[in-house]
Amino acid sequence: MKKQFAVIGLGRFGGSICKSLSEQGMEVLAIDTNEDKVNEFASIATHAVVADTTEENTLKSLGIRNFDHVVVAIGDNIQSSILTTLMLVEQGVNHITVKAQNDYHEKVLSKIGAHKVVHPERDMGVRIAHNIVSKNVLDYLELSDEYSIVELEAGQTVNHRTLIDLDIRAKYGCNVMAIKRDEEINVSPSADEVLRQGDIIIVIGADKDISRMEKDLFDEDD
Amino acid sequence: MKKQFAVIGLGRFGGSICKSLSEQGMEVLAIDTNEDKVNEFASIATHAVVADTTEENTLKSLGIRNFDHVVVAIGDNIQSSILTTLMLVEQGVNHITVKAQNDYHEKVLSKIGAHKVVHPERDMGVRIAHNIVSKNVLDYLELSDEYSIVELEAGQTVNHRTLIDLDIRAKYGCNVMAIKRDEEINVSPSADEVLRQGDIIIVIGADKDISRMEKDLFDEDD
Ligand SMILES: Nc1ncnc2c1ncn2[C@@H]1O[C@H](COP(=O)(O)OP(=O)(O)OP(=O)(O)O)[C@@H](O)[C@H]1O
Ligand SMILES: Nc1ncnc2c1ncn2[C@@H]1O[C@H](COP(=O)(O)OP(=O)(O)OP(=O)(O)O)[C@@H](O)[C@H]1O
Ligand SMILES: [Ca+2]
Ligand SMILES: [Ca+2]
Ligand SMILES: [Ca+2]
Ligand SMILES: [Ca+2]
Repeated sequence: MKKQFAVIGLGRFGGSICKSLSEQGMEVLAIDTNEDKVNEFASIATHAVVADTTEENTLKSLGIRNFDHVVVAIGDNIQSSILTTLMLVEQGVNHITVKAQNDYHEKVLSKIGAHKVVHPERDMGVRIAHNIVSKNVLDYLELSDEYSIVELEAGQTVNHRTLIDLDIRAKYGCNVMAIKRDEEINVSPSADEVLRQGDIIIVIGADKDISRMEKDLFDEDD
Repeated sequence: MKKQFAVIGLGRFGGSICKSLSEQGMEVLAIDTNEDKVNEFASIATHAVVADTTEENTLKSLGIRNFDHVVVAIGDNIQSSILTTLMLVEQGVNHITVKAQNDYHEKVLSKIGAHKVVHPERDMGVRIAHNIVSKNVLDYLELSDEYSIVELEAGQTVNHRTLIDLDIRAKYGCNVMAIKRDEEINVSPSADEVLRQGDIIIVIGADKDISRMEKDLFDEDD
C-alpha cells in the first residue's frame, strides 16, 4: 500500500513539503485553517481540507492516526503547533515532524513526543552563509566537522587542463569523484580527463584542503 | 583585508546567517529596526545597529557601499525588502543576496538588480520532503535530476559484511565513496572493508539505483 502523508499548515515551508511529496508520487492530505491556502493546494495534494488541528474531534474525524507521517508546519502560532503535536502523539501517529520557531519551542515539542523537530530558516541560513563565504562552492554536503563534499565550477584557471596535470590528489589530498558537464554526470573520471570552463567538479576532502584548492584553482575574481 | 558582510533583518533566517558568518570568522554588521533583535546580536556580530534600511541616508551613513556582500533577510514586509534592495543596487553594492517570500517578490527583486534571490522555507521544504520519503537517507546532495550523493546508515542487513560481498557496484551501479564511523571519515574505503551497524555510507549513483539499493540493503523496519 502507498504511504499516507499529512501536512498541517500550508505556509511557505509546509506548502513546499506538500508539493514536493506530491511530485514524488506520494499520497498527501493538505490541511489548513485558511480556505484560500486549501484551495491553492486542492490541485496539488491528493486531498485538501479546511480544518483546525487543535480540535481533537477534527483530527479524529480525519482519521489522522492512520497516516504514516504527519508534518506540523504551523509557524507563528506556537501554541497551536504544540497543541496539535500533543494530540497527534496521543492519537498514536508513528512519525511526527514539527517545525520549531526557536529553542524553547523545540524543547517543548521534543518533551511532548515529536519524533523530529526542524528549523528550516535556521538550517538554510547556515547553508547560505557557507555559500556566501566560499563563493566558488555551488553546493555542499557536510560529512563531519572536518570533511565535506563540494561542487566547484571550473573557471579559466583549470580550463583545458587534466586532473593528473592539476595533481589534485597529491597537492591537496582531495578526490575528484565526479564531473558534471551539460547535465551529464561522469561518476568515474579518469586521470587524463580534460576539464572545460563551466564543468562542475564534485570533490571530497578535508575542509581546509578544499579551501586551499578552491583558492588556488577555482577563485577567479580576486 | 578581511571581507565585510552586512545582514539586514535578524529574524530566524537572517539571524542564522549572521551567526554562521561570525562563526566562520567573518566581519559582520547586523542591522534591524528592532532594538531587542539588535541587542541579541551585539555579542555575536562584529557590530550591531538599530537602523531602518529603507532610509537612503541611513544606508549611506553606514557606508553600505563598502561592504563586499549584503544580505537582505527582511521577510513579511515585502515593500521594505524591495525598497532596501533597490537602494543597495543604487549605492553600487557588489553582491546582494535577498530572501524572497514568493515568486512575485522574486521577480521584482531580480528585475531591480538583486544578484541572488533565495527561498529558504521553500528549499528546506524540498529537502525535508526528500528526507521523509527516503527515511534511510540522512543527508544528500543533488547532482542533477538523475544523480545524487546520499548518506545511508548501515543497519543489521549490512552489518559485518564487506563492500565486495555486498557487490554494490555491480548490482546497483553505485559507488561507495566514503565511510563515516564515530566521526572518523575513510575517504577511500577498500573492497574488503567490513561494515558495522551505525556506520554512515556515502554513496554516489543514479537516483533509481540508489533507491533500489536503499530498499534492499538499508531499509530495516518495513
Ligand atoms: N490550528 C491550525 N490548524 C491548521 N492550520 C493552521 C493552524 N494554525 C495555523 N495554521 C496555518 O499554518 C500555516 C503556516 O503558519 P504561519 O504562516 O504562521 O507559519 P510561518 O512559519 O510564518 O510560515 P513560513 O515561514 O513557512 O511561510 C498558515 O497557513 C496557517 O493558516
Ligand atoms: N526596514 C527595515 N530595516 C531593517 N530591518 C527590518 C526592516 N523591516 C523589517 N526588518 C526586520 O527584519 C527581520 C525579519 O523580518 P520578518 O520577521 O518579517 O521575516 P520572516 O520572513 O518572518 O523571518 P524568518 O522566517 O526568517 O524568521 C525582523 O526582525 C524585522 O524587524
Ligand atoms: Ca508567516
Ligand atoms: Ca547537506
Ligand atoms: Ca515573521
Ligand atoms: Ca519564515
